[in-house]
Amino acid sequence: MKSLKDTLAGSYLFKDVGSREIDVLLQKIPYTIKNYHAGGIIRFQGDEYDHLCIIVSGEVDAHIRHGNGKTIKIESLKAPDPLAAGILFADNNYLPVTVTAKTDASLLNISRETVLYLCRQYRSFLLAYMKDMGNKIVFLAEKIKHFQFNTIRQKIASYLLEQRSRQRLDSVTLSYTKETLAEIFGVTRPALSRVFGELAEDGIIQPEGKLIHLLKPDLLAGILDEGDEA
Amino acid sequence: MKSLKDTLAGSYLFKDVGSREIDVLLQKIPYTIKNYHAGGIIRFQGDEYDHLCIIVSGEVDAHIRHGNGKTIKIESLKAPDPLAAGILFADNNYLPVTVTAKTDASLLNISRETVLYLCRQYRSFLLAYMKDMGNKIVFLAEKIKHFQFNTIRQKIASYLLEQRSRQRLDSVTLSYTKETLAEIFGVTRPALSRVFGELAEDGIIQPEGKLIHLLKPDLLAGILDEGDEA
Repeated sequence: MKSLKDTLAGSYLFKDVGSREIDVLLQKIPYTIKNYHAGGIIRFQGDEYDHLCIIVSGEVDAHIRHGNGKTIKIESLKAPDPLAAGILFADNNYLPVTVTAKTDASLLNISRETVLYLCRQYRSFLLAYMKDMGNKIVFLAEKIKHFQFNTIRQKIASYLLEQRSRQRLDSVTLSYTKETLAEIFGVTRPALSRVFGELAEDGIIQPEGKLIHLLKPDLLAGILDEGDEA
Repeated sequence: MKSLKDTLAGSYLFKDVGSREIDVLLQKIPYTIKNYHAGGIIRFQGDEYDHLCIIVSGEVDAHIRHGNGKTIKIESLKAPDPLAAGILFADNNYLPVTVTAKTDASLLNISRETVLYLCRQYRSFLLAYMKDMGNKIVFLAEKIKHFQFNTIRQKIASYLLEQRSRQRLDSVTLSYTKETLAEIFGVTRPALSRVFGELAEDGIIQPEGKLIHLLKPDLLAGILDEGDEA
């Protein structure tokens, strides 16, 4: 079993702090560790989230329970992922999910005040935290932008045209992996690949690894209006 | 015309730093100020955003240009608002909007490195920045959650039931103003008020200022399934 120090040294928040320094700070900062048996409830949806929780061993599941009683699994997290780092400082800092232990699991809890201390003490910790929140904001904003388009074809066309205007080239590099793109679009990975394939067959794009040549940008733009008359 | 110090002292990022200390830090940190005439373009959609820009005088508009050429105004900002503080630290730190000067305007530019310095130097600046990003994440996540419901009636029902489970009371306090709720739901303020009124007439809820008594939570839950068979 990994030591707490080694686990944290492998997390994106602490990875550049250095494992010797992690030893030092663990002597200085207040924290608690709680252990959960597989199946146990760690946090309820709606709980106030005022301590940063970092999974230090095991795996957890996050579920959303809707008002009508339906429960949907959102994601699995495992050591050394933190839970919901983004909402720790929000005014409405309530967990949007119920978190349960998928396996036996241990969680480290650090108060908001201590997180601020770590941010001020360690530039790399601050930068990692800011980057994580910034990436979350961009991810959610992209997701919202693509809701307005109904078909995967339109979502891909809109995304590629945006990359084209951003990168100012007719051959664009995907800014996300296909897994993440599928997640942003709210579609499955195979469905995404099938539509990429169709666009290639139609001679509109020509994929070459992470690079996509936009052979007919005008036809891509036309896709955005498809079905508008319906 | 307000001094730079007084303008910053009125912004949410600097408000607790104190105006004497703002004087001190303006001597120490590198920054630039750029002036724009009304109608001028400040930043293009797709531009890399690697300096925090704070409007120190005047007003700006943010527009989105879609792939098919349509342009939509997203919001207006005025001194002392910052632009896009949330994406400054994202890996894909590209502006999602084109920013133009609505009136003559001046913008202060501070590098990412200097923002990190300010975060480490001033606890209140760090806390305000984290809070702003956290609130943005919660706002966007709420917006996504309510996309799945088609009608305003469903969006309100889902929101109220969530507040009920969070606050563990049958009388819930709105966590947002009605303006912000309308924005989250992507509907107009009058449309939102009309549906609140209908739910009250039906005897399902009884509003009392910011407090909403949920008289028939079961009927609220039923609303979530309305139209599912359609």
